[in-house]
Amino acid sequence: MNAISIRRAREADVAVIVAMLADDALGRAREDASLPLAQPYLNAFAAIDRDPNQLLAVADGDGVIGTLQITFLAGLSQRGAWCGQIEAVRVASSRRGEGLGQRLLEWAIDKCRERGCRVVQLTTNKSRTDAHRFYERLGFKASHIGYKLEL
Amino acid sequence: MNAISIRRAREADVAVIVAMLADDALGRAREDASLPLAQPYLNAFAAIDRDPNQLLAVADGDGVIGTLQITFLAGLSQRGAWCGQIEAVRVASSRRGEGLGQRLLEWAIDKCRERGCRVVQLTTNKSRTDAHRFYERLGFKASHIGYKLEL
Repeated sequence: MNAISIRRAREADVAVIVAMLADDALGRAREDASLPLAQPYLNAFAAIDRDPNQLLAVADGDGVIGTLQITFLAGLSQRGAWCGQIEAVRVASSRRGEGLGQRLLEWAIDKCRERGCRVVQLTTNKSRTDAHRFYERLGFKASHIGYKLEL
Repeated sequence: MNAISIRRAREADVAVIVAMLADDALGRAREDASLPLAQPYLNAFAAIDRDPNQLLAVADGDGVIGTLQITFLAGLSQRGAWCGQIEAVRVASSRRGEGLGQRLLEWAIDKCRERGCRVVQLTTNKSRTDAHRFYERLGFKASHIGYKLEL
């Protein structure tokens, strides 16, 4: 694991990130990883990259092998506490079981601490039972229900 | 209900918003609505107000009687879809049962549509069973588990 670095994503990483999002039970039906990459992915990257409250990260070890996105959320609740929200966590299928997911999450939690967040939050689909165990091992509490409305 | 308008919050509204956050089974222990308002609340309002991807709203009818916060989230997932996230939904205790919560949510969903969001998401504490029924009536699906880690 020593040769792996976690860093801010660059535009050149987007195709590999999208391929990881697509290589997933839920992602398969809803992503399009074909090249050249569809423009909405590049537009989304640009919007993330210019937003000081967004941090799209990759784990890089002989290429991109993991990713997650952090959003730093200001809110009045809990005495004006900042909250770090983690989304789109993926590890390349060929590199699972090496502890890389844990390393990515610990890195993200550190970034939230550095930004003064008092809470880290994330949601995960009810069907991802492996993910539930993973987040509970990291100390997350399953205190909430996550609702989605498709427009 | 006709005399109620929903609008972007101003700094002068923050004390009333915090009072609504505090007047709640879960908020009571974690907010401090005493005046003059603690500076972290005003700092949080300033951070929200200057962020083009944040919209703190109030329902105003002879004073502020409801609030919610929308964050517009860019992400690569789902072909670069924008997502609207709703948090900190409250209706003044004296004005519950009039359909104001539904009106606030419908307003927020419209704002998400205007911004091109493909999904609206929110989480709610497992203990808020009235809220669960409310969101399900509005068409939200309880597809996710919401995890929190306190730092």
